[in-house]
Amino acid sequence: MSPPTGSLYLVPNALDLGTEGVATSLNEVLPLGVLRTAARLEHWIAENAKSTRAFLKRVEAVVPLAKSLQAISIVELPRPLKGGGGRPSTSNGAALLAPATSGADVGLLSEAGLPAVADPGASVVQTAHGLGIPVVALPGASSVLLALAASGLNGQSFAFVGYLPIDGAARSARIRELEAHSRRASQTQLMIETPYRNGALLAALLDCLQAGTRISVSCGLTLPSGFTRSDTVAAWRQRPVSLPSDVPAVFSLLAG
Amino acid sequence: MSPPTGSLYLVPNALDLGTEGVATSLNEVLPLGVLRTAARLEHWIAENAKSTRAFLKRVEAVVPLAKSLQAISIVELPRPLKGGGGRPSTSNGAALLAPATSGADVGLLSEAGLPAVADPGASVVQTAHGLGIPVVALPGASSVLLALAASGLNGQSFAFVGYLPIDGAARSARIRELEAHSRRASQTQLMIETPYRNGALLAALLDCLQAGTRISVSCGLTLPSGFTRSDTVAAWRQRPVSLPSDVPAVFSLLAG
Repeated sequence: MSPPTGSLYLVPNALDLGTEGVATSLNEVLPLGVLRTAARLEHWIAENAKSTRAFLKRVEAVVPLAKSLQAISIVELPRPLKGGGGRPSTSNGAALLAPATSGADVGLLSEAGLPAVADPGASVVQTAHGLGIPVVALPGASSVLLALAASGLNGQSFAFVGYLPIDGAARSARIRELEAHSRRASQTQLMIETPYRNGALLAALLDCLQAGTRISVSCGLTLPSGFTRSDTVAAWRQRPVSLPSDVPAVFSLLAG
Repeated sequence: MSPPTGSLYLVPNALDLGTEGVATSLNEVLPLGVLRTAARLEHWIAENAKSTRAFLKRVEAVVPLAKSLQAISIVELPRPLKGGGGRPSTSNGAALLAPATSGADVGLLSEAGLPAVADPGASVVQTAHGLGIPVVALPGASSVLLALAASGLNGQSFAFVGYLPIDGAARSARIRELEAHSRRASQTQLMIETPYRNGALLAALLDCLQAGTRISVSCGLTLPSGFTRSDTVAAWRQRPVSLPSDVPAVFSLLAG
């Protein structure tokens, strides 16, 4: 008889990676029940080992860890291929999940928000399903969905499309394609950008989209400095803002 | 000089509406910081007044309310039009937001998960932006995104499309359209169904989709009885399961 497998817990992280927010108690942004589960896990699969240790130190400030940080095993996910088209790689997931097949619970953590959403980790989750390892998603926030809620745009039908092409002509074409799809399907389209390109993406959106299309930008969600502006393209053009270049932002559009 | 406006707080709810989970402490599923904010709000706009009072009683079990429940104002959102195509109505949002324009903070709450996401409320949020009322989305879980994380399907590109048509032929056509779009865009497609039709939707998906397409079903997210199964259509057909008819489920598909 094989031993019972452990579970794979998808553990939400805070949304304040690389910002002043890391001084905030995790009590502000994650449920106590999630912190308790995180505090007892001894095996982690992580987007980044260093930020996982930082997360566990923040957990420890609220709930004592079951083992010392040094005794907790943290293995990193393979780096995703840039421009890989969003398809998860299917490399060594089974090796990463060995503790679970031996009966121990394992946590999956990304640098911010929910693992496997707009972040690596999906291939490990898929491998876990294939191995019969129960997958448990613990409740936490995703910046994509908080941005959608704060946008006031259509929350009954929406799509997240990740990053747009960097090349100017390809980006313009992609923006027009997203606007056309948004109009056809009455569907909000959400995207993200590397913070230092926030301003460039906003400029491209204002350049390419029709005046009646709505754009919403959420910067620094869950941070004290965070804000959401949601308005028509015409109004954004009339009252431009400069976006911070050091804080993550989520961009949404809905064709008018 | 006009007085400073209050903010509109988008307050996440638990995901256990109508289930045994309502006995669970909100500490398990919502951040303490969110419960503290909810406990001090005296004005609410709600999908449902009765469930808002139930929510506030659960908040009170963790953090004392600033005012007695009887002294807290709760106004309901207008009911959405069935089959309204997902476009938010733009009716009396300004009236609902009157406390905020007078300087008081206001909470927006749906029956489960994030307000204005797969739920009413987007039109009030859009009205708030138009009135210059700051909109603050507080961190919490959406069942759609937890299901996506737990599915192991593509989390770099995904769309939520709400409910499918009830009519059999229209539903089959819609399922095939979603599969074709999923293939073209490498995009996970997520949908929901009224719990008593969970089994019928799964049967329709298994009937219409190609053998290599992957389907994931998450039932009862955050409940002790919750589970996610993610597999190819071929494997679902070989090992069928019967879904509970009294627990919310989220369905995802990704063309293989």
